[in-house]
Amino acid sequence: MAKINTSPLSGFMELTPADQITFNRLLETIKSSYERFGFIPVDTPLIERAEVLLAKAGGETEKQIYRFSKGDDDLALRFDLTVPLSRYVCEHYADIVFPFKRYHIGKVYRGERAQKGRYREFYQCDIDIIGDGSLGLVNDAEILGVIYTTFTALNFGKFIIRINNRKILSGCCQAFGCADKMTDVLRIIDKLEKIGNDAVTKELVELGLSPEDAQHLLGLLALRGSIDTITKALQPLAQRSEILQTGLSELQEVVKYLPAFNVSPDAFRIDLSIARGLDYYTGTVYETSLDGYPELGSICSGGRYDNLTEFYSNRKMPGVGISIGLTRLFSQLKSLGLLATTKKVLSDVIVIPFIEDLSYPLTIATQLRQHGINTEVYVENVKIKKKLDYANKQGIEWAIIIGQDEVDSKILTIKNMKTGEQVKGSAEDVCALVTQKKIILP
Amino acid sequence: MAKINTSPLSGFMELTPADQITFNRLLETIKSSYERFGFIPVDTPLIERAEVLLAKAGGETEKQIYRFSKGDDDLALRFDLTVPLSRYVCEHYADIVFPFKRYHIGKVYRGERAQKGRYREFYQCDIDIIGDGSLGLVNDAEILGVIYTTFTALNFGKFIIRINNRKILSGCCQAFGCADKMTDVLRIIDKLEKIGNDAVTKELVELGLSPEDAQHLLGLLALRGSIDTITKALQPLAQRSEILQTGLSELQEVVKYLPAFNVSPDAFRIDLSIARGLDYYTGTVYETSLDGYPELGSICSGGRYDNLTEFYSNRKMPGVGISIGLTRLFSQLKSLGLLATTKKVLSDVIVIPFIEDLSYPLTIATQLRQHGINTEVYVENVKIKKKLDYANKQGIEWAIIIGQDEVDSKILTIKNMKTGEQVKGSAEDVCALVTQKKIILP
Repeated sequence: MAKINTSPLSGFMELTPADQITFNRLLETIKSSYERFGFIPVDTPLIERAEVLLAKAGGETEKQIYRFSKGDDDLALRFDLTVPLSRYVCEHYADIVFPFKRYHIGKVYRGERAQKGRYREFYQCDIDIIGDGSLGLVNDAEILGVIYTTFTALNFGKFIIRINNRKILSGCCQAFGCADKMTDVLRIIDKLEKIGNDAVTKELVELGLSPEDAQHLLGLLALRGSIDTITKALQPLAQRSEILQTGLSELQEVVKYLPAFNVSPDAFRIDLSIARGLDYYTGTVYETSLDGYPELGSICSGGRYDNLTEFYSNRKMPGVGISIGLTRLFSQLKSLGLLATTKKVLSDVIVIPFIEDLSYPLTIATQLRQHGINTEVYVENVKIKKKLDYANKQGIEWAIIIGQDEVDSKILTIKNMKTGEQVKGSAEDVCALVTQKKIILP
Repeated sequence: MAKINTSPLSGFMELTPADQITFNRLLETIKSSYERFGFIPVDTPLIERAEVLLAKAGGETEKQIYRFSKGDDDLALRFDLTVPLSRYVCEHYADIVFPFKRYHIGKVYRGERAQKGRYREFYQCDIDIIGDGSLGLVNDAEILGVIYTTFTALNFGKFIIRINNRKILSGCCQAFGCADKMTDVLRIIDKLEKIGNDAVTKELVELGLSPEDAQHLLGLLALRGSIDTITKALQPLAQRSEILQTGLSELQEVVKYLPAFNVSPDAFRIDLSIARGLDYYTGTVYETSLDGYPELGSICSGGRYDNLTEFYSNRKMPGVGISIGLTRLFSQLKSLGLLATTKKVLSDVIVIPFIEDLSYPLTIATQLRQHGINTEVYVENVKIKKKLDYANKQGIEWAIIIGQDEVDSKILTIKNMKTGEQVKGSAEDVCALVTQKKIILP
């Protein structure tokens, strides 16, 4: 029989069991951080009408889309979770209580050219807060609180959340008399890290800015410091642009609430050079990076937008949200050796029988499970050594070996495979021990 | 602007937020029941090479498959989780420790004709235990233990797990001298509930069975009772068929271990008429039904198979597993009014500020979250009545209203919105109260 190629398709991540357990742990951490702030889950179909997706897609996205037909239906796989949210909010408007705080963790599809670190199927972990007509700025601060809480819980190491307000960039362009060229200015600014100050200045001047204004703008983008420092530096320019004034007030309002969310000042930075895409975001924008790993780029980004549903409804629905691209992040962190994979199974306890009739060992396992303890029994009829090898390989923390003595005496011995700690007792004693350790240990 | 149709595609379930929370609760219950037995998670791409899926698909499945191309790739969406498991086990053989106990909860796709209760996208919740070369029968009993534990936890009401062994049916055919017509016999037996005893007898006789054998067979299929009763009834026939003898011993071995898994005798029945598909299963087969709702059919089915990987590998990998089709089950239970949707959000506590500066209310919320309490703050600047309406609509259990008095005194009042219970105290007191209630209450 000709063998079929069983490797997953190029650009599709498929993990070993041990890696999957680590991946799911991250996913759970993100999920529970989101839920901690009152976000609720939404799930939408992977497949959408092509017209729904194409209403927003354009350029690269449109080329990358997986589109196909089934019967008369022109279908496509979602390429992000924002378009489905937009459709969802319109469709279920009557069932939604606003402000609508939803999280969505799911796979999205982009048929990109396959290359290292690029995935065609990947998980996005999104939250958005959607207002019906209006949405207070304090939500922008809350999103920052969520990012801080989530990455603290994920425990990848020191991270920095950088924020900006798009209106400040727009306002600067206005003040410099190049409001009509804002898209070009942003495009040039985006290249700052790549091509450096001099080249950017040159391009800005070619675009029509005076050399002084270009210098001034670059000076602002390089500004670091507290909101007071930033305010002071922007104040003169803000006299010349109402938008800049608005952007600055918004930024002040957001920053004001950060202590209430317990965001450590170390983990937070105002950075006026952050633009995040050219036309979607309209206010606060966020980027998050891991300290010491600039090559990872932003690992959690997002911002404020004026209207989620412009393509599908006449209602105005402002929102603010972020996304974590977990598939790519996982693969990068793994390459860097930053992920600890300690558990190969989810079992807390393994019961290893050294007898033929498995009734008693199985009964003990049932009892442990009834106490909420994940328990497996090695039931295959193999040599003792192979049974013990299995327990060691899987890295299960506790083992209970049951031979005829245990069946007769009903006294069990449970052994911690890592510490060597060993306790003798009744089934109830053993349950109590494991439950206790589970609660005490993290 | 022409409005785009925002409804999900026909045959694709999309839930309101409240229903989604209920759905996810069921999903979590299933997941944790599976993990309780030591099953570990696997996740595979939604998209597979078409050849991988078509190796096993055939007939109806092949027609229903979503197939498309992207670049040079001939692709398709998975139609079940068994084929991906089979590919996965071959691909990751070196990283898998056997017996491999995996669970997989994910969406699958079948482009069926749209009709009530049929979905084109639906969740399957699968477990399988895969052996490398061999796999002990006690695993078949464990699967029964998992079904019992899962549906007990799901708490839909009384249920019955029916089991059979395919070898018993094969053996009966052998004993009646119609081993070559087994497929036809099974096809006819499958119609028993629909067309009744007489019509089935007639068809069996037309197939070549003597009227006496047809009667005998139907008598066996209708048998109810303990394994001893069944054994006694089958014993004479078992003399004439080795396969039947094997099937009977296997059934005895599986039933023997049920008390060890604490499976209630009420929830379990041997039913020799269960066949489950014509050629996949080779031993134990399972069906599960809700008492009093025969119209739901089997809500959890599966069985033992000789070789998971026959299409992709020369290794022999026997397995046993089950699947719950949660999307359909959810929709049926909802129609029947059997699902309680009590929670519209996941927040334990809502903080409602009656003041302009939100710093203090947000600080209190942060403190609650740090105690593991899901907390939201109503931050929009609206009338007091609208804030209270929100809390009531969402059905959040605890509310903390914060006005200037609370800011000044630092004494909070937390109120249980259902019971009216009200407690005054410091932020720490409030955290302790909610945490305590969360642990004590289910």
